Amino acid sequence: MACCGNCFCCQCCCRERETRTPEELTILGEIRDEENEILPRKDYESLDYDRCISEPYVEVLEGMDNKKAKKYEAVRWIMVFAIGMTVGLVGLFVDFFVRLFTNIKFTLVGDSVEKCTDKGCLSLSLLELLAFNLIFIFIASVLVLIEPVAAGSGIPEIKSYLNGVKIPGIVRLRTFVCKAAGVLFSVAGGLFVGKEGPMIHSGAIVGAGLPQFQSITFKRINFDFPYFRSDRDKRDFVSAGAAAGVAAAFGAPIGGTLFSLEEGSSFWNQALTWKVLFCSMSATFTLNFFRSGINFNKWGSFQLPGLLNFGEFKCSNGDKNCHLWTAVDLAFFVLMGVVGGVLGALFNCINRSLAKYRIRHIHPKAKFIRVLESLLVTMVTTVVIFAASMLLGECRDLSSPTTHNTTLASTDDINSTIRSFFCPNKTYNDMATLFFNPQEAAIHQLFHQDGTFSPVTLSVFFLLYFLLSCWTYGVSVPSGLFVPSLLCGAAFGRLVANILKVKLGMDLYSGTFALIGAAAFLGGVVRMTISLTVILIESTNEITYGLPIMVTLMVAKWTGDIFNKGIYDIHVELKGVPLLDWETEVEMDKLTASDIMEPNLTYVYPHTRVQSLVSILRTTVYHAFPVVTENRKNEQDFMKGNILISNNIRFKKSSVVSRAGEQRRRCQSMKSYPSSELRNVCDEQSTVVEPSEEGEDLLQQMLERRHAPYPNLYPDQSPSEEWTMEERFRPLTFHGLILRSQLVNLLIRGVCYAENQSSATQPRLSYAETTEDYPRFPDIHDLDLALLNPRMIVDVTPYMNPCPYTVSPNTRISQVFNLFRTMGLRHLPVVNAIGEIVGIITRHNLTHEFLEAKLRQHYVTI
Amino acid sequence: MACCGNCFCCQCCCRERETRTPEELTILGEIRDEENEILPRKDYESLDYDRCISEPYVEVLEGMDNKKAKKYEAVRWIMVFAIGMTVGLVGLFVDFFVRLFTNIKFTLVGDSVEKCTDKGCLSLSLLELLAFNLIFIFIASVLVLIEPVAAGSGIPEIKSYLNGVKIPGIVRLRTFVCKAAGVLFSVAGGLFVGKEGPMIHSGAIVGAGLPQFQSITFKRINFDFPYFRSDRDKRDFVSAGAAAGVAAAFGAPIGGTLFSLEEGSSFWNQALTWKVLFCSMSATFTLNFFRSGINFNKWGSFQLPGLLNFGEFKCSNGDKNCHLWTAVDLAFFVLMGVVGGVLGALFNCINRSLAKYRIRHIHPKAKFIRVLESLLVTMVTTVVIFAASMLLGECRDLSSPTTHNTTLASTDDINSTIRSFFCPNKTYNDMATLFFNPQEAAIHQLFHQDGTFSPVTLSVFFLLYFLLSCWTYGVSVPSGLFVPSLLCGAAFGRLVANILKVKLGMDLYSGTFALIGAAAFLGGVVRMTISLTVILIESTNEITYGLPIMVTLMVAKWTGDIFNKGIYDIHVELKGVPLLDWETEVEMDKLTASDIMEPNLTYVYPHTRVQSLVSILRTTVYHAFPVVTENRKNEQDFMKGNILISNNIRFKKSSVVSRAGEQRRRCQSMKSYPSSELRNVCDEQSTVVEPSEEGEDLLQQMLERRHAPYPNLYPDQSPSEEWTMEERFRPLTFHGLILRSQLVNLLIRGVCYAENQSSATQPRLSYAETTEDYPRFPDIHDLDLALLNPRMIVDVTPYMNPCPYTVSPNTRISQVFNLFRTMGLRHLPVVNAIGEIVGIITRHNLTHEFLEAKLRQHYVTI
Repeated sequence: MACCGNCFCCQCCCRERETRTPEELTILGEIRDEENEILPRKDYESLDYDRCISEPYVEVLEGMDNKKAKKYEAVRWIMVFAIGMTVGLVGLFVDFFVRLFTNIKFTLVGDSVEKCTDKGCLSLSLLELLAFNLIFIFIASVLVLIEPVAAGSGIPEIKSYLNGVKIPGIVRLRTFVCKAAGVLFSVAGGLFVGKEGPMIHSGAIVGAGLPQFQSITFKRINFDFPYFRSDRDKRDFVSAGAAAGVAAAFGAPIGGTLFSLEEGSSFWNQALTWKVLFCSMSATFTLNFFRSGINFNKWGSFQLPGLLNFGEFKCSNGDKNCHLWTAVDLAFFVLMGVVGGVLGALFNCINRSLAKYRIRHIHPKAKFIRVLESLLVTMVTTVVIFAASMLLGECRDLSSPTTHNTTLASTDDINSTIRSFFCPNKTYNDMATLFFNPQEAAIHQLFHQDGTFSPVTLSVFFLLYFLLSCWTYGVSVPSGLFVPSLLCGAAFGRLVANILKVKLGMDLYSGTFALIGAAAFLGGVVRMTISLTVILIESTNEITYGLPIMVTLMVAKWTGDIFNKGIYDIHVELKGVPLLDWETEVEMDKLTASDIMEPNLTYVYPHTRVQSLVSILRTTVYHAFPVVTENRKNEQDFMKGNILISNNIRFKKSSVVSRAGEQRRRCQSMKSYPSSELRNVCDEQSTVVEPSEEGEDLLQQMLERRHAPYPNLYPDQSPSEEWTMEERFRPLTFHGLILRSQLVNLLIRGVCYAENQSSATQPRLSYAETTEDYPRFPDIHDLDLALLNPRMIVDVTPYMNPCPYTVSPNTRISQVFNLFRTMGLRHLPVVNAIGEIVGIITRHNLTHEFLEAKLRQHYVTI
Repeated sequence: MACCGNCFCCQCCCRERETRTPEELTILGEIRDEENEILPRKDYESLDYDRCISEPYVEVLEGMDNKKAKKYEAVRWIMVFAIGMTVGLVGLFVDFFVRLFTNIKFTLVGDSVEKCTDKGCLSLSLLELLAFNLIFIFIASVLVLIEPVAAGSGIPEIKSYLNGVKIPGIVRLRTFVCKAAGVLFSVAGGLFVGKEGPMIHSGAIVGAGLPQFQSITFKRINFDFPYFRSDRDKRDFVSAGAAAGVAAAFGAPIGGTLFSLEEGSSFWNQALTWKVLFCSMSATFTLNFFRSGINFNKWGSFQLPGLLNFGEFKCSNGDKNCHLWTAVDLAFFVLMGVVGGVLGALFNCINRSLAKYRIRHIHPKAKFIRVLESLLVTMVTTVVIFAASMLLGECRDLSSPTTHNTTLASTDDINSTIRSFFCPNKTYNDMATLFFNPQEAAIHQLFHQDGTFSPVTLSVFFLLYFLLSCWTYGVSVPSGLFVPSLLCGAAFGRLVANILKVKLGMDLYSGTFALIGAAAFLGGVVRMTISLTVILIESTNEITYGLPIMVTLMVAKWTGDIFNKGIYDIHVELKGVPLLDWETEVEMDKLTASDIMEPNLTYVYPHTRVQSLVSILRTTVYHAFPVVTENRKNEQDFMKGNILISNNIRFKKSSVVSRAGEQRRRCQSMKSYPSSELRNVCDEQSTVVEPSEEGEDLLQQMLERRHAPYPNLYPDQSPSEEWTMEERFRPLTFHGLILRSQLVNLLIRGVCYAENQSSATQPRLSYAETTEDYPRFPDIHDLDLALLNPRMIVDVTPYMNPCPYTVSPNTRISQVFNLFRTMGLRHLPVVNAIGEIVGIITRHNLTHEFLEAKLRQHYVTI
């Protein structure tokens, strides 16, 4: 706040800082009181998807020919293949150990239960189960303590990253290790969590890390591989990695690709999408290949699509009248969508309150409290499932399932996971069958086991699962939400099917209802649309489910959206991440760029003294500075006096491309071409120009005449309190943008020239030198000032971005928003009709909350 | 060319015209000689995807609240549903009649053949078949004569449209009628054509037409429904319609959506994509519902996904060791991809030569020649298939297929299409089975019938199909290319499988090889990537085919691309459509916006006399005019003298948003908020400003001082031959863009004011009035000059687009290209650092050919 008083004097903020201007506080304050909302925090930076075409990059471009470009492209293809493979292997690793641990656990506990049912030592079995679960979850929690970002599903973080927000630590190798190992233990520990979200996060980290060939966590891992060191490339690879994660988790390569597209805002980039799809395919089939080999010893065949698959939905061979679904069912699906939407909204609402409670009361306390919380959740979960299986399970006839002929293999599979705890011979315990199995097996049971679950069991199961998984999501272990939601929804769908079948005597396929219930609840919780539809279709491997799944998801989303946002969006919001929506609301178009931009700017001149740069960098926190020139009365006089000023004026003149100059250039280059008409024009023109070419040409004179009448200000002059409004906000011609990191880099590498020399003597950096420190550039405070001569001059023009996209102050919000979001911008200068910069727009000026506040202000003023 | 001499004097071209500047001719001339290439034609316009935020539109915006916006959104959803339904019904209609006609034909001819085999009257059967085919094709050709755009597959046209090129007539109702009816007869007529391409085209027309509620072909159809009258909305609906077409044709809703995305350049628009997917689903399931009802009398179930489906690929139940494919097969698939790519390239090469021949020798002649050509092709095709079946078919044992247990239903299906022409009892003719069936049935045969085709039959079939379908594509009947390519490729794949099985004794699933062969050849011909992969996966309804299909398509595309472009791109090129690729080549980044822009501009002033506008509109053919102001020495003096000039100067001053002015506005609106610091600044500032507020304020004065020293030119002054270069290309501040259609509309509706009145007296048009004539605006030559007073003044500023996206002259091509393509622009002004317009970029400046030429020039000059 203290800063901002100063700022007003002359230099202020390219946004992205922690403090707010009084103006904003005033406006935003109202909302904060009203709704107790968590506002987007200002300390998140954007990724920079737009390329900065500075001179070192142009040098790279000049050396680029088609052959080199093709080689570069080939490296990309190899990279996405490697990412896909790695993600597939990670999935295999997680899956293998989860299976191993779960099998050991359930086998031992199962044996113990069967022995103890007669002996009456069931409490011993419970203790055994408790010991397993607590140990597993303890390991998972400790891993998360090491790297707190590894907690939760990771989808909110990946969503934010693909949206263009830089969140510290989410794509680090340490996070990867903690996440992948943590999820293994949290799933094996019997918590109601899935491994899909963490798989997606792991995939994204693989995508970010693999092409860098270095690691910040483990400094020794550094192969000095200089490619792909930019936000743009990194984000492309993260898209591919996240898609591969989805593909591996669900066996859904197309769904994964669409997930990346849906969450990653970028425009539809054909070449990228094609690579992302290839990456997803690689992941799916790597996983598929090894799992088929390891699990079935069928090397070379591809039997198991993804970590989670839904089995085959099909009618028995003999039954000619059986349909998976009919037009009549569709009406029920719509109703289930509504209910799923409401249930999902309720889930989100409860989880939101819990998360808020955690942020306020648990996170500020000592870290081990979090471990205790996870252990508490584990204990409750374990006791509940044990008690429910013992007390509420019904014993049902074992023969019933075999009468219904599904494919032989899958029936075998399903029967093997049936549990007969506490039940007499030839019957089995339906509750235990659901609880004492891996979640995937339980889903298979609900989807494919016909007529085996009593309505009471299903209701109890649904309720317990709903409450416990809601409590669990947010505990500090790696925890996905897909599988618990699917299971919960499947129980609900199965319940509906049971009621319709028994009470109304309808002829229907229960599996479809379980699937639609799962879709409805999952849709109500996560509110994803296109990608979720495709993921579910691919998981069922049955294209005919397309319409019902889509309709259900659509209805669930619309219903849920009446009450609150999707769970991921809620967690993004709670983190205060300034996420940008898909589009602005139509109403926002009442505002223009000048209404929302930040008008207070800190700028630098093309040629600036080292001391000025250092002081700007030390006293501000902004991440980009517009490079501007002022207009002064007698430029000719100044040029003689001060090298700094004259260099700046000279740069300005040379940088203005005029129509006349452009035309002349063309004519000159055209002279080699024979064209009578054309030559006439050029000849005529050259006769006009040539006479004046002796000292300074006509164009030069014209330009000088043009930039005359401004208040006379020296760039080194410090802002005075006596300045008028016009002096403070004097017109500044915009020439480009330079980033804080670039300026610090220039200073550290001593890129400057002495006052008595020409600016051409300034050392030049290569492109590799400008990107060497990516992604963590040194801080200005690391700079040793003793090594710098403060009177030296830095010529920033070769390193700035000379032509970022700009908008006019009258541009409507929807256009500004589209440009910003589609091009993945970080800073968008607002430039008026005569080329003066009047403000800058960043992500924070485009968040829903900020726009709402501005719109309210707009209504007040009109 | 005569025009251009004039143009140089002062006003020239916003591109999009038929003539070329001498400069271009010179450059492009070289290429033309070298490669005999067909260059993109200049008379194609771009669609305008960017919204023009003119004052009438702002009025609409001001009246927009969230409730209204939601209603509008609901109408869109209903529309896409209606489009999907309609496309589904169109598919049903085509399918029903094709089936009916084909059945009648084959039943009659089949009976005749069977009778005549004994009697020896086979020539009679041939004549019967010929008569059927010739009559059908004659009808199809006549329909295409009525609307020539209806010829061919329509995919090149839709591709161009979605790419942003306006092609006259392609989305008209008449085209729809001719296409849908024509394809029915051309398929029934036994030509080697598919109905998929025409289905996609029909879908696109439904999408374009339905939401307009009016027709140009049938003027009576006009419900006066004013929504969606803009290029933006229309193109969105066309995307949806085209996707629905794909979805109906292949039963591939996701593939359809991806097809739209792949061909439509627009950025990833979440809301739109979701609607497109819904539209596709509606189409698939409408078709599915009715076909299940009509064909199987199972109303309410959904058995038949699309017009073309590939049947179920599955191993027999008993066979535990059967795999659809293994890792070893993958190596063969890669090889097949290479061969498919080469064959596809050969196909394209031959077809390209044929198409060129047709353009040169058939199209210029009388139209009935085209009908004769189609009849000739029909005759040859008919005779060939008859002769081949009779002479080259092998008689094979009927019992073999039943030993292999596929699902019962599908085996029944397949056996019913077996033909035993010319063969003894219990055997059948393999060639006739392929030729004397609908193409879909033949595909099923090749995919699912095990061990029934001899290598000789397959080779002959492949060769005949390859040549005949290559000849057929381009004949003037509606003709798709998918099914012939699939059939051709399936034969090739089946041949490979036969050889591997018999010669090498490998254990493989022939159906998979047939499918991969089909994918390889189709991929080699059309070179589509993502969407084709997904379409094929969806058509097989088997997710595990994902990897092999993708790998095959990738290899086929890469191989084919070595030789030539995809068939659709070739036909786009032959039409001279200026299609924009996905990205520019990396090398092009050596060029900047100023290298490729059109520097000669015809501009208008904010306030212009009617006579000037009329003369500009009559003497130029450009579609957009920048609205500019000049800078003159003593503006104050001029303002007193000439109302026109003073109005222009006043507009310029008021339109420049300065930082100081912006800050003042903010302070004033902030006064209502309590914030001490802020108020200080504002108060201080207001004391500075207030004293000067009597006549003209400080800012005003400043602005005046600023725009002083330019050559003294009157806007009405006609360009003189004595002007210097500087006078001709004098600096012009850019304020906005106005379209030709808008100017004509203003003139026709008499929007102007008299010299002695204020510009506020000019009548105002509502938004509805500005869009009423969409999409065909009146021509300037329709204007009755007698109704206009030439001395009246038009104020164009309320109707221009005040803030189009702009780029700086130094922007690199890749950035320019991205902006242009992603935002779907039509004109992109190039504006320099001080706000002067230096050129304009349109689609024609970004075509591959133009950029290549400029790059060559760039190399020459350096």
